[in-house]
Amino acid sequence: MGFTRKLLSSLKKASTPMMLPDIFHRYRNQIDIELSSILDGYQLPLYDMLRYHLGYLDIHGNPSNHSNGKALRSTLCLMACEAVGGDFHRTLPAAAALELVHNFSLIHDDIQDGDRERRHRPTVWAIHGKPQAINAGMAMRVLANVSMMRLNERGVPSSTLLQALALLDQTSLRLIEGQYLDLSFEQRQDISTEDYLNMVKLKTVSLIACALELGAMLVVDDRCLIQPLLNFGTNLGFAFQLRDDLLGIWGDQSITGKPVGSDILRRKKSYPVVFAWENSSDSEKNTLSSLYQDDRLEEDGKSRVLEILDGTGARNHSQALIEKYCQDARLEIEQAQVSATGRACFTELIEFLSIREF
Amino acid sequence: MGFTRKLLSSLKKASTPMMLPDIFHRYRNQIDIELSSILDGYQLPLYDMLRYHLGYLDIHGNPSNHSNGKALRSTLCLMACEAVGGDFHRTLPAAAALELVHNFSLIHDDIQDGDRERRHRPTVWAIHGKPQAINAGMAMRVLANVSMMRLNERGVPSSTLLQALALLDQTSLRLIEGQYLDLSFEQRQDISTEDYLNMVKLKTVSLIACALELGAMLVVDDRCLIQPLLNFGTNLGFAFQLRDDLLGIWGDQSITGKPVGSDILRRKKSYPVVFAWENSSDSEKNTLSSLYQDDRLEEDGKSRVLEILDGTGARNHSQALIEKYCQDARLEIEQAQVSATGRACFTELIEFLSIREF
Repeated sequence: MGFTRKLLSSLKKASTPMMLPDIFHRYRNQIDIELSSILDGYQLPLYDMLRYHLGYLDIHGNPSNHSNGKALRSTLCLMACEAVGGDFHRTLPAAAALELVHNFSLIHDDIQDGDRERRHRPTVWAIHGKPQAINAGMAMRVLANVSMMRLNERGVPSSTLLQALALLDQTSLRLIEGQYLDLSFEQRQDISTEDYLNMVKLKTVSLIACALELGAMLVVDDRCLIQPLLNFGTNLGFAFQLRDDLLGIWGDQSITGKPVGSDILRRKKSYPVVFAWENSSDSEKNTLSSLYQDDRLEEDGKSRVLEILDGTGARNHSQALIEKYCQDARLEIEQAQVSATGRACFTELIEFLSIREF
Repeated sequence: MGFTRKLLSSLKKASTPMMLPDIFHRYRNQIDIELSSILDGYQLPLYDMLRYHLGYLDIHGNPSNHSNGKALRSTLCLMACEAVGGDFHRTLPAAAALELVHNFSLIHDDIQDGDRERRHRPTVWAIHGKPQAINAGMAMRVLANVSMMRLNERGVPSSTLLQALALLDQTSLRLIEGQYLDLSFEQRQDISTEDYLNMVKLKTVSLIACALELGAMLVVDDRCLIQPLLNFGTNLGFAFQLRDDLLGIWGDQSITGKPVGSDILRRKKSYPVVFAWENSSDSEKNTLSSLYQDDRLEEDGKSRVLEILDGTGARNHSQALIEKYCQDARLEIEQAQVSATGRACFTELIEFLSIREF
């Protein structure tokens, strides 16, 4: 880990973009091939919206290889598969399904939040309108199950496949429940850090934990082997989202592409804001409350929110909580019966996610 | 059939509401019990949106037994199951799944079309806003697969269940493709009756045909038994939608609750309109074209459209096409190896759907 930290720090000093750990490159090509081939059978222009969102087509419908995020969930699934002794090629349909579930939620989130841009490109609804983008998101979600069915052709027994499908469907419901809560929080002024973490558990953590459980359960039928990986995923998921929240406020603009405090301008009630709310004086609470009710929270308001966040130590507290989740993730992975290579990869991943700048 | 026709005609004369054939009452209670019990495990208010849409809760969250439509798809599934010798209780989870798929599409359609009312009640989005209604529709669709999983507990073998799940997912994609086309037609002036019927095949027919295929395949593993029922469903589906289109324009207001020409006021390009377009003079085409581009098509415009429709014989042609599909449905059911009771029920259903007034 010392090495990763040093590497990241030297990369930052040299002002070059921070690099993804090798593990993210190991499967990437195969995941893209699997995803593209699932879409191959579908010709209607509807499916070009999906190809565009996934980065396989540009806005004009020409082939593209625009970065489709980190593909964290599919990578975790394949890592788990290999760590318990499986052949990751066999598990690719599940990895692709996880990407499809994650990306359905992104397409719908963008509609629900009115976000016009994602990964430096216009969102699907910004191009095709909200009614058609709803269709694109739905088709993406259904294709996840279509993808899962390919596991049968690769030798996964029917009974295991049914368990895996049930897990993916239950996890999808949790995602939707999390999104339901997240949207409902916009109307509320009384969210506690506990409420917030409960929402995050549903909206973000559940799919990350599912990725690890799925990767393992397709290979082994032993809860003693699967459970530690699932627990690892749960802790990693919290660390991942909390780091996301921290970067949304204090991220380095030259790396994230977003100005400091961008999540505050969007009035997102992310962890640091909820923490500050819970730990500030009554007058500060009133200030936060009125600023977050404003339709337009401008630069002045942003500075005032940042001051209150600083006053409550929200940033340090957030990073400390991230480190706590990372520590718990480390303990789980130490207990897990996984290969030495698997353990090393998981550990490197924890280090990266705890201090990542993008 | 003569009896049904006479019955319907006497009911109309007596000005009492037209009755649903008995077959719609045979399973209704069991379908509602199955649907409610699937929802029982879910407590978040998100699921009350689903219960409201399904008619199990009123707008204030109190228990209700508001009519949830005809439950045509689930009824057809259970009829098919019994007609090939199955016990319908075993197939109830599939019937419930079909209702959930159908109702997810209604929740999203209402958002996409901006419709504020369905079955004389406010739509889900009209109450909770479009972002949360998107979540409700998604949850409904995922619950369809959760419901399917219950088939395993009722003795359906895993391999059959996987085939059934694949069918339901592929059918859902067709539904979404149909909705994609339907929305895209709004922007087009050159839709042929062939384009229209292709869209209907995806958007409406596919789920009705799927209901029959599903009901049979869960009981028997013989395409010779299943295929005629599937073909019957396809013809019935076309007849059903075309009758819907006809009622949307010329339906009896005292029965449908909607004024004559209501689909014209909404500028819906339903079958009679597309037929008239294809079969009218250039000057009439121009009139239709400009009227359908108008943001507000008022009473005057509606009368002009009705005149053009009358001039092309759109109503008679529509009813003739309905009767053609009904005749093909009859032939299919005569060939199908089903019980005598099943055949009688299917035949009665064809009669009802071909002349129904609601």
